Amino acid sequence: MSEVAAAKPAKVIVDAQELRGLAAGIFAARGTSAADAAAVADALVWANLHGIDSHGVSRIPRYLELFDKGESVPGAAVTVERPRAAIAIVDAHAAPGPVAMNRAVDEAVAGARECGIGWASVRGTVHTGAIGYYASRIADAGMAALGVVAGVPNMAYTGARGAAVATSPLAVAVPAGKHELVLLDMATAVMALGRIAQLKAAGKELPAGVALTADGEPTTDPALAKVPTPVGGAKGAGMSLVFEMLASGLAANPIVPSYHSGAKEGRRHRQNGFLLAIDIAAFLPAAEFTATIDDTVDAIKSLPPAEGTSEILVPGERGRRTARDRAASGIPLGPKVWRELTEIATTLDVPVPVPLS
Amino acid sequence: MSEVAAAKPAKVIVDAQELRGLAAGIFAARGTSAADAAAVADALVWANLHGIDSHGVSRIPRYLELFDKGESVPGAAVTVERPRAAIAIVDAHAAPGPVAMNRAVDEAVAGARECGIGWASVRGTVHTGAIGYYASRIADAGMAALGVVAGVPNMAYTGARGAAVATSPLAVAVPAGKHELVLLDMATAVMALGRIAQLKAAGKELPAGVALTADGEPTTDPALAKVPTPVGGAKGAGMSLVFEMLASGLAANPIVPSYHSGAKEGRRHRQNGFLLAIDIAAFLPAAEFTATIDDTVDAIKSLPPAEGTSEILVPGERGRRTARDRAASGIPLGPKVWRELTEIATTLDVPVPVPLS
Repeated sequence: MSEVAAAKPAKVIVDAQELRGLAAGIFAARGTSAADAAAVADALVWANLHGIDSHGVSRIPRYLELFDKGESVPGAAVTVERPRAAIAIVDAHAAPGPVAMNRAVDEAVAGARECGIGWASVRGTVHTGAIGYYASRIADAGMAALGVVAGVPNMAYTGARGAAVATSPLAVAVPAGKHELVLLDMATAVMALGRIAQLKAAGKELPAGVALTADGEPTTDPALAKVPTPVGGAKGAGMSLVFEMLASGLAANPIVPSYHSGAKEGRRHRQNGFLLAIDIAAFLPAAEFTATIDDTVDAIKSLPPAEGTSEILVPGERGRRTARDRAASGIPLGPKVWRELTEIATTLDVPVPVPLS
Repeated sequence: MSEVAAAKPAKVIVDAQELRGLAAGIFAARGTSAADAAAVADALVWANLHGIDSHGVSRIPRYLELFDKGESVPGAAVTVERPRAAIAIVDAHAAPGPVAMNRAVDEAVAGARECGIGWASVRGTVHTGAIGYYASRIADAGMAALGVVAGVPNMAYTGARGAAVATSPLAVAVPAGKHELVLLDMATAVMALGRIAQLKAAGKELPAGVALTADGEPTTDPALAKVPTPVGGAKGAGMSLVFEMLASGLAANPIVPSYHSGAKEGRRHRQNGFLLAIDIAAFLPAAEFTATIDDTVDAIKSLPPAEGTSEILVPGERGRRTARDRAASGIPLGPKVWRELTEIATTLDVPVPVPLS
């Protein structure tokens, strides 16, 4: 990371709370309710705080473009059906991802309180941001969480040429006691698209095995890399495919077949997802569970480290450290992202915070 | 595979139904009920039929060893609690895996019929066999399934030396219409232990990246390979860790911390798991869902194939073809496995079928 950063122009550092205000101001000015604007801003800034900058405020111009094209609707009223006690279907009606996904968090948690587990499918939203955010919110309710988002194909599938399936992420959140939340948030690709783009922008060679050319040939040349590869070959490809089937199939809003049908509509940006909440206290005393998670974390972190490893990390640990640093000292944004945001804000008469540096 | 097979002594070919009878006879003679013996036999032979020979009848001697040591109990009465409508906790009381997992299938399906989704945690069983079997059984009830099994550490964890976590598998089953079940059944390791053992036995070099030495160094030397590596590095390691937390944590039967505590008891073979059943018909008309899955399968299989690929496969397809072949022409068993089974059967006065060849 450091060499890449050094090759780039200096970052603009913005206070997290100020950045939230800026983002919320932009969404509110574009027609989302104050509550929804704050929700979207919180989800995006959470991603920036945790170092997942590809899913943070850099996405704001793209949301506005989707608003302009009518592919996302800023004031859309999310609707919910609850066909059975433990399941809900949240129809986003093209509302921004965080608005729909937050509703899914609430519905999954409500189902779990009543039935022990709760599931919410999300139909027809756009950019959900970092899915770990929603899993974390379920964990804030003392529950474990599992979530998936499916989108438009952008990743290879074993044996096929070109983009076949999406880099559909899986998130699992497990509350601990003295330790903090164990949070796995992983794309089904070997390397996140954002990281590939970063290496491309820096003109750096890619590691072997992370991307294919348009012809489906493996490449390390960032200029030729078009399609990221699935993690573990057929395993990541298979995960992505079954995630699409569960996320989009249960939401009655299939993406993969319509994308490959050749119809223009099939390539339109859209996402489906699901969240599962598990009410730990329905299984065993919550304190017993969290003590077990603490013991498990301690066991892993106390293992003899491999050559060259100074500390063994559990999922979520690195992101949380970044979040602490960035909450204290500000969020670094690329100059292009900052310029775009300030231009948008100025056009919309939204006050622009003064960067920390 | 073919070169490896060629280097080995000829296989003994046994009819699947006869093999089921042999396996059931052995378990019944060792004290399981006739129904449980048939259930275990069916799960093991299913794995053999699907080409997952490492999880098939070759495990029988190990089950009997666990019976001898009291670490598994052939006649154990599985008990079930249902603390809330959608969740069940199945306590195996050390019953063989298929007995406990089949009960979990029934409980998960019952929960899903009532609540839309159903979850069953399994506490304290041994060798579950191929987890895809249980996901398939849930799919037989017209439902989608997700399942995980956690066991004793045998896999590397990013940054740690030696075995840290288990190769805990994930299975996802999605019913289709004209196509057959989409069934993902994957270990969180790059390469299954059984396959590594196969290459070891054949004295073949391992592919790069699949195993570490006892010192945690990457190796392709089968003689030095001790610990399989997680798929995708931190991703597979993270999946395995959170699967242990959910499977063992919710079952109040932690494995990873007790394994690493140094206590002898902590190294004892045992497994926990969970199964989630999703009642598709509660979300949308089942025929609409299965049509979507068919369309998705068709879209993937119709993609332009990459260089060197003659057919694009979806998860479960290869195993099902193997199952058809083996159902028709018999199951090939290694001579050592066959010798062990016939010796056991003879000792127990269980009739031994005549191999097909």
